Amino acid sequence: MDIETPAALIDERRMAGNIARMQDHLAALGVRLRPHVKTSKCVEVARAQQKAGAAGITVSTLKEAEQFFAAGFSDVLYAVCIAPDKLDRAVALVAKGCALTLLVDSVTAAQAVVAKGKAAGLTFAVMIEIDSDGHRSGVQPGAPELLDIGRVLQAGGATVKGVLTHAGSSYDLDTPQALQALAEQERALCVRAAERLRAVGIASPEVSIGSTPTAIAAQNLEGVTEVRAGVYVFFDLVMSNVGVCTPQDVALSVLTTVIGHQPEKGWVIVDAGWMAMSRDRGTQRQKIDYGYGAVCDVAGNVIDGLIVSGANQEHGIVSRRDGTADTGLVERFPIGARLRILPNHACATGAQYPSYVAVTPAGDAAPWPRFQGW
Amino acid sequence: MDIETPAALIDERRMAGNIARMQDHLAALGVRLRPHVKTSKCVEVARAQQKAGAAGITVSTLKEAEQFFAAGFSDVLYAVCIAPDKLDRAVALVAKGCALTLLVDSVTAAQAVVAKGKAAGLTFAVMIEIDSDGHRSGVQPGAPELLDIGRVLQAGGATVKGVLTHAGSSYDLDTPQALQALAEQERALCVRAAERLRAVGIASPEVSIGSTPTAIAAQNLEGVTEVRAGVYVFFDLVMSNVGVCTPQDVALSVLTTVIGHQPEKGWVIVDAGWMAMSRDRGTQRQKIDYGYGAVCDVAGNVIDGLIVSGANQEHGIVSRRDGTADTGLVERFPIGARLRILPNHACATGAQYPSYVAVTPAGDAAPWPRFQGW
Repeated sequence: MDIETPAALIDERRMAGNIARMQDHLAALGVRLRPHVKTSKCVEVARAQQKAGAAGITVSTLKEAEQFFAAGFSDVLYAVCIAPDKLDRAVALVAKGCALTLLVDSVTAAQAVVAKGKAAGLTFAVMIEIDSDGHRSGVQPGAPELLDIGRVLQAGGATVKGVLTHAGSSYDLDTPQALQALAEQERALCVRAAERLRAVGIASPEVSIGSTPTAIAAQNLEGVTEVRAGVYVFFDLVMSNVGVCTPQDVALSVLTTVIGHQPEKGWVIVDAGWMAMSRDRGTQRQKIDYGYGAVCDVAGNVIDGLIVSGANQEHGIVSRRDGTADTGLVERFPIGARLRILPNHACATGAQYPSYVAVTPAGDAAPWPRFQGW
Repeated sequence: MDIETPAALIDERRMAGNIARMQDHLAALGVRLRPHVKTSKCVEVARAQQKAGAAGITVSTLKEAEQFFAAGFSDVLYAVCIAPDKLDRAVALVAKGCALTLLVDSVTAAQAVVAKGKAAGLTFAVMIEIDSDGHRSGVQPGAPELLDIGRVLQAGGATVKGVLTHAGSSYDLDTPQALQALAEQERALCVRAAERLRAVGIASPEVSIGSTPTAIAAQNLEGVTEVRAGVYVFFDLVMSNVGVCTPQDVALSVLTTVIGHQPEKGWVIVDAGWMAMSRDRGTQRQKIDYGYGAVCDVAGNVIDGLIVSGANQEHGIVSRRDGTADTGLVERFPIGARLRILPNHACATGAQYPSYVAVTPAGDAAPWPRFQGW
């Protein structure tokens, strides 16, 4: 491959497999998939998800909403509670014809959305965030405030599309039993919140749940209308430790070149440091700590026991995961040799690059740009 | 301030103070300062360093070399051992008139540099990397290979500019005594390496050392010609824990907006998640663990005891560092309120942004672009 290093490679075959797996699983459960494009921030990746059957996209920033809308994605869910001073950008998107859905989890934010909608003379579509596992934001499914928020939105002329939750604590689990239990909790609490709203006359047709682990673990999605998942498109080592993929499913890797050695220590120095891998150490507290990534040969086959054990900004240290010094690594990987590194966290690693390099099974490579910023 | 959040603010007054402090310190010790612009990747920041007296720049990638050369910086040291397949880009830079210096720490790389120089009909200026603290790359100062590398370069027609080391293990220290000892070790070992080369007829006029902590700690730089340092321009919480600055010196902060609360937990949810802060948890093993950053008021004054205790991609959780739930935070920081977050590691946080926002003492704000990629 004639690609300058470090480079973020997308294995198109693996990516297609990951997309098909999630799409088929959710279709079998009778729900729509609304992929979270924060993982890739890349139009080509989102198009592959759309082509496979995804319905709409989820975004984490208004910049993603703007960029994907400009690329032809019109059904956009902005799944972070909106700050009042971001509403002008939301107005601009809706005015251009974007079917944008906003998120709130407080009366204060609901009031701001309603006021801005009235001032701009448009109807915002809004979902209410539910806290289904205590890990972050969202209103409790049984809280009085849920109904207060719904009433403020409905009375103020907004369209209450429904409720949304994200069981992000699934990243901390690693058994099928625990994942299935959390998936059911995520479903049940979100459905319950929707039923409470409906009981007081707030239609709330949509029940949107999801995280990659709970989406995969779910066996029953009764009452749910759509699932959101992001990292499944690439998968990564954190997901492998959670138990929802294997390292050989990981579609994103960093191509790197050997630039030196410390022979006595069994260190191979490569040009993939933390700038190329990100600072994400998500496997640190999991059952297998991969350092800054798992080392593969240039074809993407995992080399058992080798990790990026340390990283400076533009230097990675490849060595054995068990801490022993393999002095044979110097001959095996001479200066100029190339390796591929699987990332801990694909969302964080991708964010370090202005562009991916997408590689087909035939070995053809093409740049797939991604965007940065807010 | 009418700035969209999250934003990476540069406090120009603090930055100017940090630049002056390092420049004055090194001038008093009789050495040149060659700032490492990998920290900012920003032409405006490097110009401020140059204006204050810096001599040349240090870069960590060829993209930095190309971008800064295009902006008028002609004296460029690429301080990562070059991969042979990157030499064509180095040739292109030298051919355009860039006074580029390359780095090697092996005979193999030296041979590749020599071969490429001959093939391209130009003279590369090269330094040899010395390992002064065992933390990464570089040849041992007493190793026979040091002389072999020098001979290969000299015989092959390259200009051996001298030796270079980086005592990066200084980041793990936190007492003036330990830092001074490491600074002296860095100096002494690098000077020794230069003397060995000179003794066999390889001129090696330059002795280049440095890391921000050892640069600040150094009391005597006899034999050294230049010091490289990067993060001092902004400083950060890691450097505060190392003991070479205070949080009030930190010139880079992330402006963020409150988007929600979990009142019972004492959590304030802000729009600065790990995408805005980076995944760097460099203070995790230091004496004060700041989570994903230290919280300041909008003017940049540290609010004692508040940190970003957790982060998802676009959500930060602000809470008390001692783990207690301050339920008064909800009233104190309502939805829409703004805060500033000091980063663990300025190099990593800056890399998350396509542009900084530079703020003058009068409150004027200007975009200062930075670049991404390799």
